[in-house]
Amino acid sequence: MLGEKEDRVCIEEFLKEQVEKSGCLEPVLQESMAYSLLAGGKRIRPLLTLAFARLCGLEAEKAMPFACAVEMIHTYSLIHDDLPCMDDDELRRGKPTNHVVYGEATALLAGDALLTLAFSCLAGADLPAARIRRAVAELAREAGAAGMVGGQSIDLASEGKQVDIDTLIQMDLGKTAALIKAACVLGCIAAGASEEQEEQAREFAVYVGLAFQIQDDVLDVLGDAKALGKNTGMDEKRKKSTYVSLLSLEKARQQVQELTEKAVECLAPFGDKARDLQDFARRMAKRDH
Amino acid sequence: MLGEKEDRVCIEEFLKEQVEKSGCLEPVLQESMAYSLLAGGKRIRPLLTLAFARLCGLEAEKAMPFACAVEMIHTYSLIHDDLPCMDDDELRRGKPTNHVVYGEATALLAGDALLTLAFSCLAGADLPAARIRRAVAELAREAGAAGMVGGQSIDLASEGKQVDIDTLIQMDLGKTAALIKAACVLGCIAAGASEEQEEQAREFAVYVGLAFQIQDDVLDVLGDAKALGKNTGMDEKRKKSTYVSLLSLEKARQQVQELTEKAVECLAPFGDKARDLQDFARRMAKRDH
Repeated sequence: MLGEKEDRVCIEEFLKEQVEKSGCLEPVLQESMAYSLLAGGKRIRPLLTLAFARLCGLEAEKAMPFACAVEMIHTYSLIHDDLPCMDDDELRRGKPTNHVVYGEATALLAGDALLTLAFSCLAGADLPAARIRRAVAELAREAGAAGMVGGQSIDLASEGKQVDIDTLIQMDLGKTAALIKAACVLGCIAAGASEEQEEQAREFAVYVGLAFQIQDDVLDVLGDAKALGKNTGMDEKRKKSTYVSLLSLEKARQQVQELTEKAVECLAPFGDKARDLQDFARRMAKRDH
Repeated sequence: MLGEKEDRVCIEEFLKEQVEKSGCLEPVLQESMAYSLLAGGKRIRPLLTLAFARLCGLEAEKAMPFACAVEMIHTYSLIHDDLPCMDDDELRRGKPTNHVVYGEATALLAGDALLTLAFSCLAGADLPAARIRRAVAELAREAGAAGMVGGQSIDLASEGKQVDIDTLIQMDLGKTAALIKAACVLGCIAAGASEEQEEQAREFAVYVGLAFQIQDDVLDVLGDAKALGKNTGMDEKRKKSTYVSLLSLEKARQQVQELTEKAVECLAPFGDKARDLQDFARRMAKRDH
């Protein structure tokens, strides 16, 4: 079941193993990769992949390489995002950021190496080659210029500007929703799900992804820096347009609820089997870190 | 035939098309990707992929996505390498480097996007899924911590130190030879070549790759900055250990010749059909930029 301790333990183990088996030529680089990858994130994305694989009838273990590939992409994006030329953050998940510990150059390379390792991981899955090919295409699209990296670039272009809500949504569809979409769809692809099922997963992911981002904005205002493991109040400090600044705190919180309920509805065709995923979406909406 | 104008034209067209079709969410990011990808490199790696595909009996056109994926990896590595936290270079192929034109943050993202696009490109090839899966595994290994990125990390760790010739070789097997190996082997994989043929391609690539790197060191001493499109004498300025500083200029040049002849021999089993590739290796050894 989603969020179960057992899934998390398996994810941690698999990630650790992948870095150890990566054949890394330089010990410091490997250490830097492991530092961020094994920093105890919430593992939302790989948990979603495993849950969708299970929902579509596959043993979750078989989808582990797909799940962990998505987490590697997520981790690399955090490392690069924290660099001085980007957000210049010094704290992540309560620990000094990668470049603070290893220096900018090694942090840059650790990000590159993790991004590349994600595709090794997909290719190494014990699944039919046709599914792997589709997973590579899906992950590369959602993680690249048309997805996550594209969203980050919209973010850069918006820096210091007041943006409207449509631009904000476009940005977050890229920055946050795209990779959550890849996580959900990769679970379906691993399981050989139908096109219809994939489409339901995709819609679920978009709602969950946007709700997740809005909740992030809410927590930047209301959250506890210690629980979050990062500084709060940063959006206001950076004069960033957020859902909170554009909609009000109350309306932003209401949006999180509405989007979450839409996400829950998307999984209705799966019946009771989707209960865990629906509960998970609701827990995400209430998270405090 | 390898190096033929026609191959180059097709490579340029295909690369341009891939960036245009990438669905990039932000025009500046797309421009920055195109700026470096279409900056008129020598296209050695994709030419090698096409040549090996042809040598192993495939229409070269079919291997184009594999060839261009390798070039995307090469280009991203140059963008990231030129960043201030790495080599801090302002000139590349006679033009201002990516971050000089677009800023560090966009250059970082353009590199990430090109690295990701390389895998989109592999997945989109009109070839059997099993070959695509193998190409993904091969490219990810040679481009990542066990290959190119690992080599760059050895380079970082060696900074300001005198290194011995063995460390230098290990570094260049990663930094340079690994991606050339991927280029050659991907041509074989595209064509469904035998394991033996792949192995011959692999050996050829290692010799060519090392010769290429040594020739680079030689050109940093003897070359013409204008023809090279970058500043010369940088290795000495940075007090880097190179084949020239460790072996002497004459011995380094001799090594280029010897390694090239070994590379040529590796392709003997292919007979006359390998003539173009053998000539290409010899031309590489004599290049002045």
